[in-house]
Amino acid sequence: MPLSPEQQAEIDAQRRTPTQTLRTVAEGMEQHLYTAHPVLDHGFVRVIDYMGDDAAICQAARVSYGRGTKSVQNDEGLIRYLMRHWHSTPFEMCEIKLHVKLPVFVARQWIRHRTANVNEYSARYSILDREFYIPAPEHLAAQSAVNNQGRGAALEGAEAQRVLEYLKADSTRAYDHYEEMIGQEGQAGLARELARMNLPANIYTQWYWKTDLHNLLHFLRLRADAHAQYEIRVYAEEICKLVADWVPFAFRAFEDYRMGGATLSATALDCVRRMLKGETVTQETSGMSKGEWREFEALWG
Amino acid sequence: MPLSPEQQAEIDAQRRTPTQTLRTVAEGMEQHLYTAHPVLDHGFVRVIDYMGDDAAICQAARVSYGRGTKSVQNDEGLIRYLMRHWHSTPFEMCEIKLHVKLPVFVARQWIRHRTANVNEYSARYSILDREFYIPAPEHLAAQSAVNNQGRGAALEGAEAQRVLEYLKADSTRAYDHYEEMIGQEGQAGLARELARMNLPANIYTQWYWKTDLHNLLHFLRLRADAHAQYEIRVYAEEICKLVADWVPFAFRAFEDYRMGGATLSATALDCVRRMLKGETVTQETSGMSKGEWREFEALWG
Amino acid sequence: MPLSPEQQAEIDAQRRTPTQTLRTVAEGMEQHLYTAHPVLDHGFVRVIDYMGDDAAICQAARVSYGRGTKSVQNDEGLIRYLMRHWHSTPFEMCEIKLHVKLPVFVARQWIRHRTANVNEYSARYSILDREFYIPAPEHLAAQSAVNNQGRGAALEGAEAQRVLEYLKADSTRAYDHYEEMIGQEGQAGLARELARMNLPANIYTQWYWKTDLHNLLHFLRLRADAHAQYEIRVYAEEICKLVADWVPFAFRAFEDYRMGGATLSATALDCVRRMLKGETVTQETSGMSKGEWREFEALWG
Amino acid sequence: MPLSPEQQAEIDAQRRTPTQTLRTVAEGMEQHLYTAHPVLDHGFVRVIDYMGDDAAICQAARVSYGRGTKSVQNDEGLIRYLMRHWHSTPFEMCEIKLHVKLPVFVARQWIRHRTANVNEYSARYSILDREFYIPAPEHLAAQSAVNNQGRGAALEGAEAQRVLEYLKADSTRAYDHYEEMIGQEGQAGLARELARMNLPANIYTQWYWKTDLHNLLHFLRLRADAHAQYEIRVYAEEICKLVADWVPFAFRAFEDYRMGGATLSATALDCVRRMLKGETVTQETSGMSKGEWREFEALWG
Repeated sequence: MPLSPEQQAEIDAQRRTPTQTLRTVAEGMEQHLYTAHPVLDHGFVRVIDYMGDDAAICQAARVSYGRGTKSVQNDEGLIRYLMRHWHSTPFEMCEIKLHVKLPVFVARQWIRHRTANVNEYSARYSILDREFYIPAPEHLAAQSAVNNQGRGAALEGAEAQRVLEYLKADSTRAYDHYEEMIGQEGQAGLARELARMNLPANIYTQWYWKTDLHNLLHFLRLRADAHAQYEIRVYAEEICKLVADWVPFAFRAFEDYRMGGATLSATALDCVRRMLKGETVTQETSGMSKGEWREFEALWG
Repeated sequence: MPLSPEQQAEIDAQRRTPTQTLRTVAEGMEQHLYTAHPVLDHGFVRVIDYMGDDAAICQAARVSYGRGTKSVQNDEGLIRYLMRHWHSTPFEMCEIKLHVKLPVFVARQWIRHRTANVNEYSARYSILDREFYIPAPEHLAAQSAVNNQGRGAALEGAEAQRVLEYLKADSTRAYDHYEEMIGQEGQAGLARELARMNLPANIYTQWYWKTDLHNLLHFLRLRADAHAQYEIRVYAEEICKLVADWVPFAFRAFEDYRMGGATLSATALDCVRRMLKGETVTQETSGMSKGEWREFEALWG
Repeated sequence: MPLSPEQQAEIDAQRRTPTQTLRTVAEGMEQHLYTAHPVLDHGFVRVIDYMGDDAAICQAARVSYGRGTKSVQNDEGLIRYLMRHWHSTPFEMCEIKLHVKLPVFVARQWIRHRTANVNEYSARYSILDREFYIPAPEHLAAQSAVNNQGRGAALEGAEAQRVLEYLKADSTRAYDHYEEMIGQEGQAGLARELARMNLPANIYTQWYWKTDLHNLLHFLRLRADAHAQYEIRVYAEEICKLVADWVPFAFRAFEDYRMGGATLSATALDCVRRMLKGETVTQETSGMSKGEWREFEALWG
Repeated sequence: MPLSPEQQAEIDAQRRTPTQTLRTVAEGMEQHLYTAHPVLDHGFVRVIDYMGDDAAICQAARVSYGRGTKSVQNDEGLIRYLMRHWHSTPFEMCEIKLHVKLPVFVARQWIRHRTANVNEYSARYSILDREFYIPAPEHLAAQSAVNNQGRGAALEGAEAQRVLEYLKADSTRAYDHYEEMIGQEGQAGLARELARMNLPANIYTQWYWKTDLHNLLHFLRLRADAHAQYEIRVYAEEICKLVADWVPFAFRAFEDYRMGGATLSATALDCVRRMLKGETVTQETSGMSKGEWREFEALWG
């Protein structure tokens, strides 16, 4: 359970007191505000604030004065058109601010998405909590035999047991020593900015992360993808659910054109043309490398 | 008067219908929402949306769960500390979306601030309105004799008259020909994306412009400065008033540390040290160039 | 002819004096350095500097110590893999700096690509040259009847004649008045920053523009595309030739996966699957809108 | 010693073979190319490539055709003017690419500077080396008693001994288990992307990092500052030496206006005015908080 009673009380207080605003309100998002959606064993994602909705995308695309007189149906059509033709700027007109708790090794992948605003909990200034990510047994995956960057089946039996014991014991010991090094109240102790270096990458950190919808969808396309590491993918999947409630038209277009879509090379398009004419195309006659061909074949099931 | 009755009606409709939200509401900003604040002869600035307030800056800096238990006094102190020490990321946690109508030559300066989201009215797709910036007589400044990039006193008499007539007549003619070239309804006419090239840089355009508070303050520091061109400065000054109502603590810190402050070089600091010890420092003994010395002297009045 | 004898002499001087360097040299790019490649009637593109080559992309992807021991064949395979899987960061390790002369209305589209460094010739500080883009008769396109943002066939006869006369006469008059307003040597005259507002959008400006290869390819994908406005497309096409000589592997991969490729939505992929099984799919049974179906059909010729 | 004989041989090979180029060459930087400058116990900084020099800054500021006919003295004056007046775009016209080896906790601070291109060694794909940062005894600083984010004097005696033993033993054990978990050749073992989570933040990683001079100077101002954490400051100081040899005019201006300079608030400027008139100003009469006053007094020695 990631939140203390005090933290939960603060969140409850925020959810108890609606205020009037003249701004655009996305009802689907209001229901999520402040609530911590659990991810992994100690992590969470929670929405702190948002700006805009589906109509705001259209309003910006039209540079209009009001909310627009166009019908809702037109709005969805426009959003699909913008997504299909890579007109990204109207999607940048929506913004989201999240509070995320996540293991450091996940944070290190996440931060590579540069077009975002971030305030991370400071381990120079503050003391980190004793919370570590320990994978569930079914996620203790072996190294993939075919893909240097991938996972195979889960480890089992004694090997799985040994791994879990290492992870738990090493985290515990590292944190014990971290605490000992920074010292007790009233005693000097090692500077926090130094002591933290003893902590492993499965310790949890947290941050405020704010980005616009265009960059968020780019993040989700890469991180909710089947090739993303499981531990970041579960965060991306949780955020997908929030976005689906926030901007349903934009999210549906995203699912169709990005998540469920595929980019075909000129060579691949040519192969499809030949196949549609009845030709049997093989890797040898395709002009593609083996890797490309494997990915191409996978598209047609 | 920059707005048509239809546009005003759309704005009035938006201002008439408050909705409940759980988000942070900045009362000082709600009063400005949607209203067009006039700038120059046909331009305006109006707030379309915003995210966050002073407390949101502190909340992000503390990576806290709720709105924080700290006092309002602590909040202002923290904001001043963050501003003074160039901790910019908490200010990025506030966001603003503006609808701006502005002459093209102002837009060309404005767009150089890259960290913003922009949707501009498209002259490829739509027909521009017949609205041109014609300076008020008191702003018909002569080229500065001492500064290549500056203005001197206002032109007067026949010379001012001649300039105004050129600006008016050339705009009118250019727009007449623009209209003629794109043709009447039902007739082909020149493509809009080509016809627009006949229009001068004082024609008005408009855009939705969205940025975070840190980047907005950077924009205001450069563009509300006395050295900025008058025609962009008046936009910056109008935005300053909005920001003062939106995030009063942050704006006060900005006025003290940025707008009213100055950066002294190592050489300049050394001169002040000598002057405080009673030495009479001159440009010759200062180690500064004439230009630097002039700017240095101006600081002490 | 866009360059004066003095300018050409400066360029020739730079091309005459090679220096020794330990850095990576791309022979294909050295031949283009400084030379002005003409575009439109008075514009040009010329390479001022570059960093990296195809091998530098691979070196960064491998985070290696030297130039790498891998074969050239491996390098091309790796570059294709990176491009196919949207691993964009290694392409950011190459950089290019261009000097471009271009009409203001083209510059206004170009500058929307924000991830670049720009220094533009200042019309606050300096006096612009009397050079205007006047389209060749075959590019005087009519507004498209089917696409709000597109062009139809070229205007002809009296209508074309009239347009050309407007463009020429209005430019000439606007520049005459610009010159008159800023005054003669020794006379005050209107401030340059104001006088420029009388100049139309077909006047030429120039800038230094620097960007990395990833962002350059993104620019080229959008601007060398058939839907881009002709006047910016010719710049993009000229730059494509330079890139093909600079990083031939990366450019070939770009042509295959981006320029010649297409993104299919989930719905479109499903239609292809059905078609490959022999089903006759129509717009009505496709699940696509009319616009999407038209684009989908166009892929198969 | 951070480099293996093979790595050193690769570097030596690159330094042995100069090539001819027409590009701008900065002699001061050529001498550093590829050489690994040691930082901390196993880290280094080495220049992989660079673009531009002092003259390139001026050339861009002037948007000129050649290298410019202005004197070297004028170039330094222009660079100082640009730096003093925050004209940052000409400095963006120089670019540097570094290969850096650094502890993970330093990398986590460094990456917060978003305007840069980065390729980091992948611990999903590859196996990290057994190299950990263990501070020299004189850098085992205690937590500051007055500043939550600072360091006090170095720990001594038994306490220092205990800290060093914890850091060494925990790193060794964590790496032993990391190796065991990923398994031997031929054996499946835990996926690398998971096993790495056991490694502490003092393990070394490496990356290619590329940025422009403006953003590099911003990085150096913050990270070569006395308030920066020692372990990142030593990297910044090493890079300062490289920049001083690369663009000596720009670096001197940076030292004068940024590193050695200070920003005074409106309140502080007013205090200096009063002090110059002979008034004795105290914290109570200054209008500053205690913290501000302490920083203000420190300026005058």
